[in-house]
Amino acid sequence: MSKIVTFGELMLRLSVDKKRLETANRFEVCYGGGEANVAVSLAHFNHDAYFVSRLPNNSIGDAALRAIRKEGVKQDYIIRGGDRLGIYYLETGSSIRASKVIYDRANSAFACSSLEDYKFEQILAGADVFHFTGITPALSENCACLVEKACKIARKIGVLVSCDLNYRKKLWTKEQAQKVMIPLMQYVDICIGNEEDFESCLGYKPDADIVNGKTDASGYKNVFKKVFKDYKFKIVASSLRESFSASHNGWKGLLFDGKQFYESKRYDIQPIIDRVGSGDSFAAGIIHGLLSFKDMKKTIEFAVAASALKHTIFGDFNQVTEEEVFKLMNGDASGRVVR
Amino acid sequence: MSKIVTFGELMLRLSVDKKRLETANRFEVCYGGGEANVAVSLAHFNHDAYFVSRLPNNSIGDAALRAIRKEGVKQDYIIRGGDRLGIYYLETGSSIRASKVIYDRANSAFACSSLEDYKFEQILAGADVFHFTGITPALSENCACLVEKACKIARKIGVLVSCDLNYRKKLWTKEQAQKVMIPLMQYVDICIGNEEDFESCLGYKPDADIVNGKTDASGYKNVFKKVFKDYKFKIVASSLRESFSASHNGWKGLLFDGKQFYESKRYDIQPIIDRVGSGDSFAAGIIHGLLSFKDMKKTIEFAVAASALKHTIFGDFNQVTEEEVFKLMNGDASGRVVR
Amino acid sequence: MSKIVTFGELMLRLSVDKKRLETANRFEVCYGGGEANVAVSLAHFNHDAYFVSRLPNNSIGDAALRAIRKEGVKQDYIIRGGDRLGIYYLETGSSIRASKVIYDRANSAFACSSLEDYKFEQILAGADVFHFTGITPALSENCACLVEKACKIARKIGVLVSCDLNYRKKLWTKEQAQKVMIPLMQYVDICIGNEEDFESCLGYKPDADIVNGKTDASGYKNVFKKVFKDYKFKIVASSLRESFSASHNGWKGLLFDGKQFYESKRYDIQPIIDRVGSGDSFAAGIIHGLLSFKDMKKTIEFAVAASALKHTIFGDFNQVTEEEVFKLMNGDASGRVVR
Amino acid sequence: MSKIVTFGELMLRLSVDKKRLETANRFEVCYGGGEANVAVSLAHFNHDAYFVSRLPNNSIGDAALRAIRKEGVKQDYIIRGGDRLGIYYLETGSSIRASKVIYDRANSAFACSSLEDYKFEQILAGADVFHFTGITPALSENCACLVEKACKIARKIGVLVSCDLNYRKKLWTKEQAQKVMIPLMQYVDICIGNEEDFESCLGYKPDADIVNGKTDASGYKNVFKKVFKDYKFKIVASSLRESFSASHNGWKGLLFDGKQFYESKRYDIQPIIDRVGSGDSFAAGIIHGLLSFKDMKKTIEFAVAASALKHTIFGDFNQVTEEEVFKLMNGDASGRVVR
Amino acid sequence: MSKIVTFGELMLRLSVDKKRLETANRFEVCYGGGEANVAVSLAHFNHDAYFVSRLPNNSIGDAALRAIRKEGVKQDYIIRGGDRLGIYYLETGSSIRASKVIYDRANSAFACSSLEDYKFEQILAGADVFHFTGITPALSENCACLVEKACKIARKIGVLVSCDLNYRKKLWTKEQAQKVMIPLMQYVDICIGNEEDFESCLGYKPDADIVNGKTDASGYKNVFKKVFKDYKFKIVASSLRESFSASHNGWKGLLFDGKQFYESKRYDIQPIIDRVGSGDSFAAGIIHGLLSFKDMKKTIEFAVAASALKHTIFGDFNQVTEEEVFKLMNGDASGRVVR
Amino acid sequence: MSKIVTFGELMLRLSVDKKRLETANRFEVCYGGGEANVAVSLAHFNHDAYFVSRLPNNSIGDAALRAIRKEGVKQDYIIRGGDRLGIYYLETGSSIRASKVIYDRANSAFACSSLEDYKFEQILAGADVFHFTGITPALSENCACLVEKACKIARKIGVLVSCDLNYRKKLWTKEQAQKVMIPLMQYVDICIGNEEDFESCLGYKPDADIVNGKTDASGYKNVFKKVFKDYKFKIVASSLRESFSASHNGWKGLLFDGKQFYESKRYDIQPIIDRVGSGDSFAAGIIHGLLSFKDMKKTIEFAVAASALKHTIFGDFNQVTEEEVFKLMNGDASGRVVR
Repeated sequence: MSKIVTFGELMLRLSVDKKRLETANRFEVCYGGGEANVAVSLAHFNHDAYFVSRLPNNSIGDAALRAIRKEGVKQDYIIRGGDRLGIYYLETGSSIRASKVIYDRANSAFACSSLEDYKFEQILAGADVFHFTGITPALSENCACLVEKACKIARKIGVLVSCDLNYRKKLWTKEQAQKVMIPLMQYVDICIGNEEDFESCLGYKPDADIVNGKTDASGYKNVFKKVFKDYKFKIVASSLRESFSASHNGWKGLLFDGKQFYESKRYDIQPIIDRVGSGDSFAAGIIHGLLSFKDMKKTIEFAVAASALKHTIFGDFNQVTEEEVFKLMNGDASGRVVR
Repeated sequence: MSKIVTFGELMLRLSVDKKRLETANRFEVCYGGGEANVAVSLAHFNHDAYFVSRLPNNSIGDAALRAIRKEGVKQDYIIRGGDRLGIYYLETGSSIRASKVIYDRANSAFACSSLEDYKFEQILAGADVFHFTGITPALSENCACLVEKACKIARKIGVLVSCDLNYRKKLWTKEQAQKVMIPLMQYVDICIGNEEDFESCLGYKPDADIVNGKTDASGYKNVFKKVFKDYKFKIVASSLRESFSASHNGWKGLLFDGKQFYESKRYDIQPIIDRVGSGDSFAAGIIHGLLSFKDMKKTIEFAVAASALKHTIFGDFNQVTEEEVFKLMNGDASGRVVR
Repeated sequence: MSKIVTFGELMLRLSVDKKRLETANRFEVCYGGGEANVAVSLAHFNHDAYFVSRLPNNSIGDAALRAIRKEGVKQDYIIRGGDRLGIYYLETGSSIRASKVIYDRANSAFACSSLEDYKFEQILAGADVFHFTGITPALSENCACLVEKACKIARKIGVLVSCDLNYRKKLWTKEQAQKVMIPLMQYVDICIGNEEDFESCLGYKPDADIVNGKTDASGYKNVFKKVFKDYKFKIVASSLRESFSASHNGWKGLLFDGKQFYESKRYDIQPIIDRVGSGDSFAAGIIHGLLSFKDMKKTIEFAVAASALKHTIFGDFNQVTEEEVFKLMNGDASGRVVR
Repeated sequence: MSKIVTFGELMLRLSVDKKRLETANRFEVCYGGGEANVAVSLAHFNHDAYFVSRLPNNSIGDAALRAIRKEGVKQDYIIRGGDRLGIYYLETGSSIRASKVIYDRANSAFACSSLEDYKFEQILAGADVFHFTGITPALSENCACLVEKACKIARKIGVLVSCDLNYRKKLWTKEQAQKVMIPLMQYVDICIGNEEDFESCLGYKPDADIVNGKTDASGYKNVFKKVFKDYKFKIVASSLRESFSASHNGWKGLLFDGKQFYESKRYDIQPIIDRVGSGDSFAAGIIHGLLSFKDMKKTIEFAVAASALKHTIFGDFNQVTEEEVFKLMNGDASGRVVR
Repeated sequence: MSKIVTFGELMLRLSVDKKRLETANRFEVCYGGGEANVAVSLAHFNHDAYFVSRLPNNSIGDAALRAIRKEGVKQDYIIRGGDRLGIYYLETGSSIRASKVIYDRANSAFACSSLEDYKFEQILAGADVFHFTGITPALSENCACLVEKACKIARKIGVLVSCDLNYRKKLWTKEQAQKVMIPLMQYVDICIGNEEDFESCLGYKPDADIVNGKTDASGYKNVFKKVFKDYKFKIVASSLRESFSASHNGWKGLLFDGKQFYESKRYDIQPIIDRVGSGDSFAAGIIHGLLSFKDMKKTIEFAVAASALKHTIFGDFNQVTEEEVFKLMNGDASGRVVR
Repeated sequence: MSKIVTFGELMLRLSVDKKRLETANRFEVCYGGGEANVAVSLAHFNHDAYFVSRLPNNSIGDAALRAIRKEGVKQDYIIRGGDRLGIYYLETGSSIRASKVIYDRANSAFACSSLEDYKFEQILAGADVFHFTGITPALSENCACLVEKACKIARKIGVLVSCDLNYRKKLWTKEQAQKVMIPLMQYVDICIGNEEDFESCLGYKPDADIVNGKTDASGYKNVFKKVFKDYKFKIVASSLRESFSASHNGWKGLLFDGKQFYESKRYDIQPIIDRVGSGDSFAAGIIHGLLSFKDMKKTIEFAVAASALKHTIFGDFNQVTEEEVFKLMNGDASGRVVR
């Protein structure tokens, strides 16, 4: 059991299924956010997962707190204050109709964090891993500074730093992203990115054809090698999604430790119930693998199987146990009922 | 059939019933706002009701537009732009537990309206009534200016101005309210307020004991007389709520035309399904009465019966016909099924 | 355990709660109809209750059949054929807003029954009671003829005939009703009517003030006496409803056996969950009392308690056991949880 | 922005998913009908779409009116009257279980329209297109006459006439259909039909193997050529559905302008959420293409992409924007989330 | 129309979809159990299907009774008593996530049946078939004795005995199963088993690769032949499932009458809505085929088509008519809407 | 902030509203149990509340754990094991129809606790209060022994012992209860009971007329005095419920500290949303008052106001803050919306 600290924003998610957002008369309510999602996964893998954030001091902030508490995430370092919880609206896609996300997260309690809000020395003391995503520094200048501050302290006291690049074009431009993300890479040990992240955040172009839904692991290998030349990463990992439709994806992963490439088994996922948070569950799988298995092949297989399962569960959170992931890794994707 | 123009904010309402906001896993979705609610009532009374506002150019803005369109409100003067639709969370109370409202409306598309957004000369041309509430000028300085601008034009071209004082202590202080509202009163013909509004917005203290849920029409009479001395109102009207509990209210109204007091029948409403928007449905009833009946007694009875019905309907909007209001006014509150 | 036969129409009921019919995006589905409701109550009191009707030979007809079968009603004499199942839309009222019923039952499979469809000699053989309501003869001329035919056979072979007058002004006028109903009374042994039925169907005016929601048992006594003079009834019974609002009623009953008046205890019912079918559950209680208790006082108390409970249960059907009715009759209306 | 007039019936749709109609305890409520569906699509493409029909003057009629009003359809020419709104029950199929439709639309307000109800001279004045489907003349003799009347006027005043043949075997036989539809063809400019329509309504047999779910565009070409010989159509278009299962279809389209055949891209749609209304959305796409693009290839691609999207949205109505259709046409069917 | 008797446990099923059991805030309620499911299917095929069981004398027992009554199953031999109804929790799987069943059925009213509870002479008199599954004897020693008793009587009075081996590893070990099941086989005429049952219950290993989701009819043939050597079965039948995922299965069947193998058409089922009860619907199809068609080929085709349809319907019960099964058997799996 | 330990069973609650249990097609899922409910209340009042129990090691046990974790209850001493989670079915009553509870809790993981399962020395170390109810010793002999063991340790190390007598006639007889409960009283400091508990558990008859729904504080005083003579309690407290109906109760409380009687304000609660758990929220209020206010009057007022609020919230848990209770105590029961 390790101590992992994640830092980021937790949002209210309002989603609708089978209908358009315009016509919804009910929203399903859940809560999610990149770093919180990683903490939830790790709590389900029995780690001491601490989520660090700032939530408004009202019922919606309380609801967000309850949402991660029930998943077993530690909330000791959560700060209360600010005006509002960020929101994202999700229209769940189907077949040829893509899912649609509308952000309403400006001026959130977290984005308005002040520089003194978090005592990272204390928070990171004794931690094994500090994890953030590229979303956090995109939220505000203060958030970017806070990430940098946390990274520096982590590096200083020997905490592994994990970063999921997670480029969000609705939050910033490639130029803005690169200006902030590139300097942060010096602190990072575990670098995770999906298809477009390496290009948008760090300026490397993967040779993957994203729009047409085809991804080829070989295209990633050059990027990974270049990245390793430029930064002192311990590992780089990427999930590879084949987007046949909003309901049907292929899913596998690639990990590079500077010496060897490890490519996972491929899963065919159809139908997809909820793909939001799948990248986060992949990152959590990588972190869990590194902490628990010390076996790169097993790590990438675990991360991919865990995140494949995420696609079949409603909500941002990947509520699966290590045992369930092992069962899938070990070959049983047949969906047979046990009774 | 008259042309009525209302100007204000339309919000997404996210509500939960029987549970706390903290524990909601679904929100009922509807849309509402003081001035939009008045327009909806008037559309149901077969007027040409125009709602003027600014909605974000995204699916949530579209949803808001659809919400009033389906009620028959005219949307010709609605402007699209801005970042977000304001939100209010509603925890519907019951018995001794009051309903709870959490606003998340800062920086809404409407509050960020610029001074040039609305062409009031055009909008108000041919209108019979212009209606606003004290909420609109509370939202931003620009909104306050826009209200003033609209009032001036209305006065100039002979459009009756109706104002529901509608004090919201979560939006501004009494001092702020009075500074803005008092100067606006010179343009107002129809002034509507509930118990605390005359004090908070205009500085008159009604002799009503609000906290204990008892209201006495006689306490209002002095206030109304004073108000008439200070301003050139055509009528002043107030709904009088007896708050026995969140589920049980007494409801009646008082109208003063400078000469005579008209006190309505009293309704006992139990259980209350949704009291949000009842004040707006009262204001709409007053406006409709003035335009259609030219009979003060009938006007106040209509307004009170219409708004009594609102308490029994889910949502902000009072979806009742004139015929249904007449039926209740004429004495049938027995709830017998017609078949 | 007795054999009881009821004859009438079973409809699809589409209902909405807290909202207007105009705004419903879901309808709760159940099935009901005066005579079917009586059969359901009697099945719950462990009688062999046969419902006789005609249902369309499609999925909606099947659904209707399932609805009464699950309640334990015998369906041996149900005929399949015709084009459609009758429908009624129900907007459940609340407080001062009355429930609203919209019938869409014209040309139903049952209303289009032909005169040869039912073999009443066979159906009524061995029966203890034949029950119909004033709704059935109102549906079509054929239905009126069929009721007459069944009554004659019942009388001939010694089956008690029970009639709930049940005037429906949306189906026929008073004149039409009286023309059909008065001649049928010669066959009737048990005559049940609520406040307005005796006037509308038979031409007797009860001295009850219906619109104002006040009913006085004494006003009924003269009507009952007159009725007994004119017809050879064995008993006449009436439920007496005080309609304070759609959510709050007083409820009691009066029974006359030609010699003595039996007035029941009064129940205060608040809130009312569903008052549709309460009259039918009262009629079923009377029939059950006559068959099982042979005690007029116990009969009226049972009928009133049973139908009081109906007001608290969703749907047309009164799903209560004899034991539950006895518990209420014997004084426990306190609503205390047993555990 | 063009003025388009569609004329037909709007029905209440009561649907159930994953269960049989027999076991439904809730119906999802929406409203739909061939011509209304076309109007809705066109309103979403920013045209002035007028739906002409007759709705009962009750809450269900009001609900139907609200349903199209919220979509932005103009209702100026809607007439109120008649007894009932037609209904269709929909059991949504899945995989090898087909969807099931039960009509209960006889004697609807629209089917009972009288010949004087609609002033087509006025209604069609200034219109660009008049659209009807083969359903309307199948409903009643009056409806057939009204369609003919409208067609004549349209032709006279230069309004393009669009007809979706839309054969419904539950409404009439092939013989009845051909007797009515063939004479109407002289007025038609845009003729749309799916696989079986040309045979059933006009007597041409497409060489498509419908039962086995395989359709071949080449089989259509001969039919289209023959049709063009017999009538003075401007264009003929057909959607081509490959029915692999209730959940999985292939979808493409073919258009002929008398000179050239235009065959669209093919979409693989899996899972299908709601295929009802897909034909109507195709027709609307054709009309929009003709009015806006004046490019046959773009027109058929637009119509097919628009109607492919319809399969993924609950309800009869295709709530998509032109921009969304373009996005799909231009190749992005990968279902990737934009955020 | 034949009389068929089935004997076993009926459980409350509490299910959740798209979410984990851990996070459910609502359970869908239905009732099911191997033998009850068979009775329901047969009732839908218009047989007199009697389900024999013991249900607790409380509301949950009543609910279970209602559940089969509404399906048309005869309940004349159901006994009331005992403490509780058995429960099973069902987390419906999707894609690579398998469905999960948690049993909470120990000490159920049925498992605690005493040996005198059922008068099988009476129950089986006049019956054509007696059906049980391997679940019943696994529940308790008494249940095993009761099955043996029923089998002996059935054999004695010439009632065909049908057994679905239905091995449940959560209820007993292979050793326990074989000890009980093998001796029962002497009474069995129709023996049905899925892939693993012949091995677990009777000790024969099918040559099917279950875990990898591939099944090959040829592998079964040797087992069937061996089985026929050892026992005096009239027929042996097996459904063959290809488990691609929880949402996608191939489905066919194999029947052997001692002389010839009959292999059915194969269905591709995607998506699967609810596969629970599919084996039972297959068994019911076999029984119906034997009783009605006396044609082995038609029997296996019917059983497979019927049970293929089951996968598309929510709940344990296969609510399909013979006509619907014929339609699918005869080749229409295209899912086209009929209207 | 104090440490409070509660020990008891946590059950799955399956509830239905407006319908009978027999007809439910959905159950609302929540979790509750006397001692868990107390812990939840105290966690909301910001104490370190530890709930001690045994939960099965399956998804339903996990769900129960999540349910209290999300409320902020500490779960450090929860043990996993056993076969099943106890269940109770709840039919929520209305008006004259009482709520109905069906227990299915025999053989639960908790009831099957072994004597070595809990290390009470460790668990109680540093605790301020140990709380149990009369339900726990009623569940099994082991449970009774465990309670005694915990009480002895608590007394020894100076932890206050609180006992809510909570007699459940479905679990044991008065004789059984008194045999176990009376000896436990020597360890108890805070003794809480509702109307019938003092009689059933300890043999004292309160002078309250329970069946007729009238309770009189004066009747309690003699009982309290006698109790104080017999045991060394620090305080005795009782909630006093006036049961007008299942939807309408009066609610107040009485506390005796051996010297003085403190009678609280009375609340009129109508409608009641969920009265389950109200006694537990009263007990929690007493404990919180003793720990935080050291003022008997304030303590009883707080406990009564807190538990009055419970009646208006769905579920077993009283999700209210100290601030909200103060607001009600201080007189605002008017249900006015704050905005």
